[in-house]
Amino acid sequence: MKSDIQICRDTALTPIDQIAQMAGIEPQDLTPQGTLKAKVKPSILKRLADKPEGKLVLVTAITPTPLGEGKTVTTIGLSQGLAKINKRVIACIRQPSMGPVFGVKGGAAGGGYSQVAPMEKLNLHLTGDIHAVTAAHNLAAAAIDARLYHEERHGYEAFSEKTGLSALRIDIENIVWKRVMDHNDRALRMITVGKNEAGKTINGLERDDGFEISAASEIMAILALSKDLADMRQRIGRVVLAYNIDGNPITAEDLQVAGAMTVTMCEAIEPTLMQTLEGVPTLIHAGPFANIAHGNSSIIADRIALKLSEFTVTEGGFGSDMGFEKACNIKAQQANRGPDCAVVVATLRGLKANSGLYDLRPGQALPDAIFSPDEKALIAGFDNLKWHIRNAAQYGLPVVVAVNRFPQDTDAELELLKTMVTDTDFSTYVDVAISEAFGRGGEGATELAQAVVKACETPANFKPLYSLSQTLEEKLMAVAEVGYGARSVELSACAKEQLAALKKQGHDNLAVCLAKTPLSITTDPSVKGAPTDFVVPVRELKLCAGAGFVYALCGNVMTMPGLPEKPAYMNLDIDADGNIIGLS
Amino acid sequence: MKSDIQICRDTALTPIDQIAQMAGIEPQDLTPQGTLKAKVKPSILKRLADKPEGKLVLVTAITPTPLGEGKTVTTIGLSQGLAKINKRVIACIRQPSMGPVFGVKGGAAGGGYSQVAPMEKLNLHLTGDIHAVTAAHNLAAAAIDARLYHEERHGYEAFSEKTGLSALRIDIENIVWKRVMDHNDRALRMITVGKNEAGKTINGLERDDGFEISAASEIMAILALSKDLADMRQRIGRVVLAYNIDGNPITAEDLQVAGAMTVTMCEAIEPTLMQTLEGVPTLIHAGPFANIAHGNSSIIADRIALKLSEFTVTEGGFGSDMGFEKACNIKAQQANRGPDCAVVVATLRGLKANSGLYDLRPGQALPDAIFSPDEKALIAGFDNLKWHIRNAAQYGLPVVVAVNRFPQDTDAELELLKTMVTDTDFSTYVDVAISEAFGRGGEGATELAQAVVKACETPANFKPLYSLSQTLEEKLMAVAEVGYGARSVELSACAKEQLAALKKQGHDNLAVCLAKTPLSITTDPSVKGAPTDFVVPVRELKLCAGAGFVYALCGNVMTMPGLPEKPAYMNLDIDADGNIIGLS
Repeated sequence: MKSDIQICRDTALTPIDQIAQMAGIEPQDLTPQGTLKAKVKPSILKRLADKPEGKLVLVTAITPTPLGEGKTVTTIGLSQGLAKINKRVIACIRQPSMGPVFGVKGGAAGGGYSQVAPMEKLNLHLTGDIHAVTAAHNLAAAAIDARLYHEERHGYEAFSEKTGLSALRIDIENIVWKRVMDHNDRALRMITVGKNEAGKTINGLERDDGFEISAASEIMAILALSKDLADMRQRIGRVVLAYNIDGNPITAEDLQVAGAMTVTMCEAIEPTLMQTLEGVPTLIHAGPFANIAHGNSSIIADRIALKLSEFTVTEGGFGSDMGFEKACNIKAQQANRGPDCAVVVATLRGLKANSGLYDLRPGQALPDAIFSPDEKALIAGFDNLKWHIRNAAQYGLPVVVAVNRFPQDTDAELELLKTMVTDTDFSTYVDVAISEAFGRGGEGATELAQAVVKACETPANFKPLYSLSQTLEEKLMAVAEVGYGARSVELSACAKEQLAALKKQGHDNLAVCLAKTPLSITTDPSVKGAPTDFVVPVRELKLCAGAGFVYALCGNVMTMPGLPEKPAYMNLDIDADGNIIGLS
Repeated sequence: MKSDIQICRDTALTPIDQIAQMAGIEPQDLTPQGTLKAKVKPSILKRLADKPEGKLVLVTAITPTPLGEGKTVTTIGLSQGLAKINKRVIACIRQPSMGPVFGVKGGAAGGGYSQVAPMEKLNLHLTGDIHAVTAAHNLAAAAIDARLYHEERHGYEAFSEKTGLSALRIDIENIVWKRVMDHNDRALRMITVGKNEAGKTINGLERDDGFEISAASEIMAILALSKDLADMRQRIGRVVLAYNIDGNPITAEDLQVAGAMTVTMCEAIEPTLMQTLEGVPTLIHAGPFANIAHGNSSIIADRIALKLSEFTVTEGGFGSDMGFEKACNIKAQQANRGPDCAVVVATLRGLKANSGLYDLRPGQALPDAIFSPDEKALIAGFDNLKWHIRNAAQYGLPVVVAVNRFPQDTDAELELLKTMVTDTDFSTYVDVAISEAFGRGGEGATELAQAVVKACETPANFKPLYSLSQTLEEKLMAVAEVGYGARSVELSACAKEQLAALKKQGHDNLAVCLAKTPLSITTDPSVKGAPTDFVVPVRELKLCAGAGFVYALCGNVMTMPGLPEKPAYMNLDIDADGNIIGLS
């Protein structure tokens, strides 16, 4: 089979204004960025206000291997399959970070014959939204260090006299806003800033700091959750950057930088329209992490897509305990709109990896056996799929299992898996279909598309696991105990103190976002399958007042990846005609 | 008078595809980015190969005050003036950095009725070229730290065995590639990276590092100097990132990251087409510093403009000792095309500031008196203008002095200045005109435009101050002694050692780029006027093998600005309609 970028380059694409027109996006709603991508103005929603909304299909997955189970391939493939059976459909996905493109994972445009095109545009820069997030975020970081420095060197009173501004009296030990960069750069995880040559003080005040990858920025989560520009402006104003020496929060509004941050986000708030290889309109918008943030593309893009199509297909990052849970509890509540159907992507290799029969260690390559027939492992691993179906079902949603077929998969094992699904009692609507979207595009996903259409005809009864009016502890328990099936949540002494402070500051009404490994339903990446009787330890709580949630650090969560020994960037280059080569 | 952004917003602009069409840029040469900016494909040059070139007008200035003397206003105003007298004209300017937009200086789109529009697009993100430079630069930085880390933790031999790659054996004390960010962030000037929690080593190796502003990146200079994508690819490959433990250079090619860096620059290599408030086509491309780099917009943009117009108007940063010198000695030699005419921008206030009659201190506000009539100061300050005219003349160019008129300027003083110019013997063609481009747009610059047309009719005899075949010392002497009129160049012990190493490495054929203060012809910012008998001390030499020059640090040069007490970002916000406000 041809490489992803080769398939993409060999496909004749449709001019984006035609894609827009077919989708019902009029020229005045559109700002073309070249001929194959365009910004869509959120003001389109005013024009479409009276239109009914289509169905929202949320694609999730079993507990993934580090290779991923093909969720984006399935999202794009399903969209193409729906189009093949003559449904009006729009896909909504996240913008890929450039870090993984140059690092290990490669691009995130789907793959094979189910890609968003041109994949090199999607994977690199796109329309600059991540750069805007980086710029807005780092402006606040520069602002806080500058203010700290000027107040310190003048003294609070003299500073106020000189500037007419109130001194913020920033506590240098309590600055909670790091810097961000859209690269995998481990050397920036822990740094010291504000260093000076001996005897000088012109470079600011020395303190510990660090960089996270831009996808981990609260500004990214805000982009994904904002209703409109005015809402984004308010949210950015609420972001807490630091605390003052009395322990009170200092926001971007306090620092008078929220306006400028919003100004740098003025173009980023518009979703980008592209197309799949088969011409299905696709909105790309925002790319928040699925651990410390909620891991879903934007509310604005979904709202536009729902108004324009019969089916909006979107995805949440990682397994259903991660992006899907956050889509249902964080995003759906802020959007006031839940999904109508869950699609759980499973692979034979992924289920075998969840069997407990292999010695899988984080950071090591998967054993070859996992890619070969092994009924015993498949049967054992099925528990994990059951867990994810039941998880989706407890939100009141019908479920379709999409088995993402790989070339080495045998018919016998695929049939076995289908039978196991249909033979199990799930006390909700469950269907299963094989997807060959990678190798065959939409044609390989029509069975899946039919199943999804049928599932969407069953009455959905969406309900999140908690309501925002509950306390933060109740919400943590709802996700961990009801959602994950844990025995209990255990807060560290530090987390307990933070919880008390958050309540005191009036944040009890925020959502909760559990940041844990995606490689297990528990907080321990080595525990596979469908574990029970485990504890969810919460080490620390962090406030994202602008995004509207408190995230709970449960175990180690890496917010700045590193480059491996032989990074993907080594393969990238341009050929003699100036085409990009080596991207996958 | 209305604010810059108000004037801009109140002006009816022409769709960019019409601007392109009028300029002779065909639809297949153009990639519109919205309706008011477009990328121009460098492949247009193939189509235009047989067309004759127009005249290249290079705008420079007297030794500026920190406020600037209105060089961009004059560049844009002159372009509009030329259009008013029915000449086909294209302006070529640099992309503004966002750092100053949020810091002290504000935007760099010109001002008043001589602006590039929409100014908020030009000043913020534009088409993402600076973000691409930042991304390409920082990818190399992450790559070098990652390689250092992996080679160290495995050991050189084990690393080679595991990866099949030769160990680069990077000298941790000799990594010369810093990181960059497009913000004024003084706390990042001197940092420590690769810090670890006690007992851990997962965050890389600890070492001193720092950030510069993105305009200071060698990648930015490369963007400005590349002939085409293939040339850029080669230049990026030559960039020296570090030295190994034997003291030999490690390039981006050695690290196998040059291809990926070029891939991130694939869109940035295309100039961006915009328009002035009066519809003059303007190409914006690259924004290198005018001290540690050469301070001029790109060769590619100039080449396109020269083929399409009778007059291409461009500018070099700061006074004629800075960007103009580098345009003539670095850019013109790499482009194999020199300017046809020099325009020296002077202001009454700027000349008075050069009089030596005021106590001007760096970092302090200019005294009010400088803005009021003061013939004595004007006459004394005229020496500085004479110096810059003679400097431009020694490159064989005709000179037009453009007196950039401010509202408070009196007719009497303006007449005095004109008379002083015309009464002086310059042994070259010199003319003088008042420009009211700020307040009156092109209509206020027709006298200047006529003068420029006439000057361009005189036969230019452009010659740079040195040829690349001379030695590095000879080139340094040519710029400092012939160019600045210094008594001598004095290299520090460190610079002498570096010079020997550079020669040994085969870099004697590169151009030289003197990095000094723009606020004086000497290296001391407090020395105004037209000094003689001074020494140019060179503290350090730095290799930019990709850009094709060695830069010489003469005095303190700041490559990462800081934010002031009341930064410009405090004024920026969006209004109720989502429009950007507070930008100037």
